[in-house]
Amino acid sequence: MKKPLVLLTNDDGIFAPGLYALHQAISEVAEVAVVAPDTERSAAGHAITIANPLRVSSFEKNGSFFGHAVNGTPADCVKIAYYSILERKPDAVISGINFGSNTGINVLYSGTVSAATEANILGIPSFAVSLTTYTNPNFKPAADFSVRLLRHILENKLPEGTFLNVNVPNVAHESELAGVKVTRQGKSKYKDNYDRRTDPRKHVYYWLTGYKLDADEEDDVDDVAISKGYISVTPLQYDMTAYETLDTLKKWTFD
Amino acid sequence: MKKPLVLLTNDDGIFAPGLYALHQAISEVAEVAVVAPDTERSAAGHAITIANPLRVSSFEKNGSFFGHAVNGTPADCVKIAYYSILERKPDAVISGINFGSNTGINVLYSGTVSAATEANILGIPSFAVSLTTYTNPNFKPAADFSVRLLRHILENKLPEGTFLNVNVPNVAHESELAGVKVTRQGKSKYKDNYDRRTDPRKHVYYWLTGYKLDADEEDDVDDVAISKGYISVTPLQYDMTAYETLDTLKKWTFD
Repeated sequence: MKKPLVLLTNDDGIFAPGLYALHQAISEVAEVAVVAPDTERSAAGHAITIANPLRVSSFEKNGSFFGHAVNGTPADCVKIAYYSILERKPDAVISGINFGSNTGINVLYSGTVSAATEANILGIPSFAVSLTTYTNPNFKPAADFSVRLLRHILENKLPEGTFLNVNVPNVAHESELAGVKVTRQGKSKYKDNYDRRTDPRKHVYYWLTGYKLDADEEDDVDDVAISKGYISVTPLQYDMTAYETLDTLKKWTFD
Repeated sequence: MKKPLVLLTNDDGIFAPGLYALHQAISEVAEVAVVAPDTERSAAGHAITIANPLRVSSFEKNGSFFGHAVNGTPADCVKIAYYSILERKPDAVISGINFGSNTGINVLYSGTVSAATEANILGIPSFAVSLTTYTNPNFKPAADFSVRLLRHILENKLPEGTFLNVNVPNVAHESELAGVKVTRQGKSKYKDNYDRRTDPRKHVYYWLTGYKLDADEEDDVDDVAISKGYISVTPLQYDMTAYETLDTLKKWTFD
């Protein structure tokens, strides 16, 4: 049987070690194609490039990692891979392994998640996978879980219209994980601030800074599951309609 | 009574005529602040700027339009307005008037909508407003409706967690509108393509091109309502969890 074709991308850029780790693991079970941003595009959200042209460059690392670097966003990478680079439709798209969790409000900001969203729009099974740390990463548990999840998805199919957002705690050994928990997107968001500085030419500039406020306590919320050592798997869809308010609004007269 | 403070932004940039038209209309009923991207940021999605500093410049047009131009995305503009520019929390945020509809899948790509989303995250009532044309715009019906909707929202409050996505047909006279319809986000998406070209230095580049595929027929869908001459008002929220699939996934063993 022909090996499945899996497209890998990310938002940390084609140089990122998390993408490399994912590539090594998935290559064991699938034919792998990599199309990823040529620089870091964290917090790219679901941006796509329409006002500038895209360029595609070949990329190689260690004689075993080959890919295409694109001067665009993660969503661009999935689109141009599908429409112009790959010779056939991939059987799955995996976006990651991201540096840092993509939970709560970060689901909106994340380029990693948006690449999985874009794959879903194109009718390709997909998931995003993130490691919940920015320091001392051990990508192996996340890479191994990605292999298991990929197999599961290819065998059992994802429910129609659904893609997955996976967050893996950073542990030294897989045995430290509490298990896998199916979760919902939490309500955690940021208390932001802009650090106002003056450059050497005396011009003012601002750096976004801030910290995440945990807003949830229920066990079935992404951040809570992670804090208890679980791999969090959140099924996502992209219809943002606030269905429960439709009836209320239909009573408005808009005069 | 003190006039309400309304923050205006967009993704077409601070020079855009739709923002100017909105400013003229809203200024009649509110104190207005403008914080908008210094260039067009269409299709910025919910991108925010974290890897580069932001700069803020004063902007003036015709002696009556004053604002702040930011080298960032629409979501950045709302954040930096709230945290660093405005002296008090705005009573509402309006994003627009956008050139071109933001319906179906465009809700994800749209920087206009994402600015309204960001306001909602910050706890500020908000709506995005778009005109369904790229040519020969008549912003007046959309600007007038924005005034009515703003008043309605300030008086009646939006349902908790909900913000609005408004799309106004481009008509010469308001009397040509069929009315207002409360809708849901449709499933229309794009059949894309990348136009492969060669630059004067013989290097290849790609332009995103494509057309929208209308996927819906039901009267309560955004694009359908617009096609029948209605102003479409879609309540949105940003929890992307696919709730109806949670039970299915909880049966998965992930082995």
